[in-house]
Amino acid sequence: MAKNLAPDSTRRSEKSRRAIYDAALALVGEVGYPRTTIEGIAARAGVGKQTIYRWWSSKAEVLMEAFLDLGEQASRDAGHEPYAIPDTGDLAADLKTVLRATVDELKNPRFEVPSRALAAEGVVNEELGRKFVAKMLEPSLQLYVTRLRAAQETGEVRPDLDPRIALELFVSPLAQRWLQYSGPISHEYTDTLVDYALYGLAPR
Amino acid sequence: MAKNLAPDSTRRSEKSRRAIYDAALALVGEVGYPRTTIEGIAARAGVGKQTIYRWWSSKAEVLMEAFLDLGEQASRDAGHEPYAIPDTGDLAADLKTVLRATVDELKNPRFEVPSRALAAEGVVNEELGRKFVAKMLEPSLQLYVTRLRAAQETGEVRPDLDPRIALELFVSPLAQRWLQYSGPISHEYTDTLVDYALYGLAPR
Repeated sequence: MAKNLAPDSTRRSEKSRRAIYDAALALVGEVGYPRTTIEGIAARAGVGKQTIYRWWSSKAEVLMEAFLDLGEQASRDAGHEPYAIPDTGDLAADLKTVLRATVDELKNPRFEVPSRALAAEGVVNEELGRKFVAKMLEPSLQLYVTRLRAAQETGEVRPDLDPRIALELFVSPLAQRWLQYSGPISHEYTDTLVDYALYGLAPR
Repeated sequence: MAKNLAPDSTRRSEKSRRAIYDAALALVGEVGYPRTTIEGIAARAGVGKQTIYRWWSSKAEVLMEAFLDLGEQASRDAGHEPYAIPDTGDLAADLKTVLRATVDELKNPRFEVPSRALAAEGVVNEELGRKFVAKMLEPSLQLYVTRLRAAQETGEVRPDLDPRIALELFVSPLAQRWLQYSGPISHEYTDTLVDYALYGLAPR
């Protein structure tokens, strides 16, 4: 095992880091963002406050990294690479695959509870909201931009469209249903979004 | 003035009701939903707690009605009827008109601050989120359903589409940008959403 080749101090650090992530995610899910503190995370993780301050400058930083790590784990658990949208040459199929995986992730309580706590705070706390977007949401949306640009080159998407806006036609409906409980989410639903977005509401 | 024909008790009630709405909206914007109380609203409105309990059973009820009233006022201030989407026979133009008005409303601080407080709570409080959707969001989305059904009858929208999902292609991107600070909102942006949704991302 590669793990056993790591020096003791690296293994200890890795273990503390994981404990801190788990504590931060659990705490924010339970008490919300405003009442989550570095002290509370440290106590729950069984580490000293200084251990946290050695690596991160604020609770926002700890939480963002904990989320990024959680997203990577979720992708690997689902059997696909994090930070990639497949390109099989069939845009509709590729988008459906990724959105189905996103539905599964959004329904996973391990992801859902802390994500809601952070998203809720971002709605009323513009600074945190913008950090959350810059570090977490926008990088994942840029993967769609890349995939849509490739589709523009092969002629599957109109060349005059702005891909950063185009992706919102299928990503944002899912986000709104999840965030606001405004409708059920399922694979069938996201498949429908992709078809409506690609072929349009007006008759062809 | 019609107002002067109202009996004194009705005028007094109307004035109290307005003061309670204003107090509820101001308070939730300042301290957030969890720390907003019936007592706090009463004190700020200069009425007794019992006056509030005579009309409403909970702070959630007061806030929802205050929001509905605010939305109606905003529509009238903008010079159009609340709860209606125009039908000029040109679907794209009608949707653009309504979405432009929505952009203006979302940017109005009087509407924005309390709306964010309530929306944020709805993200982490499923019961409140679902009430908010049932009383406020869904009725306004149903106006789009009605307009899209009319467009299906005139052949502007494909007859096989589910209008309740179709509307999300242009409504949800605006909602997500506003809620999550994930991008700027403008009339040009919502016009683009309508065009992309109606004509689709794939070449025709």
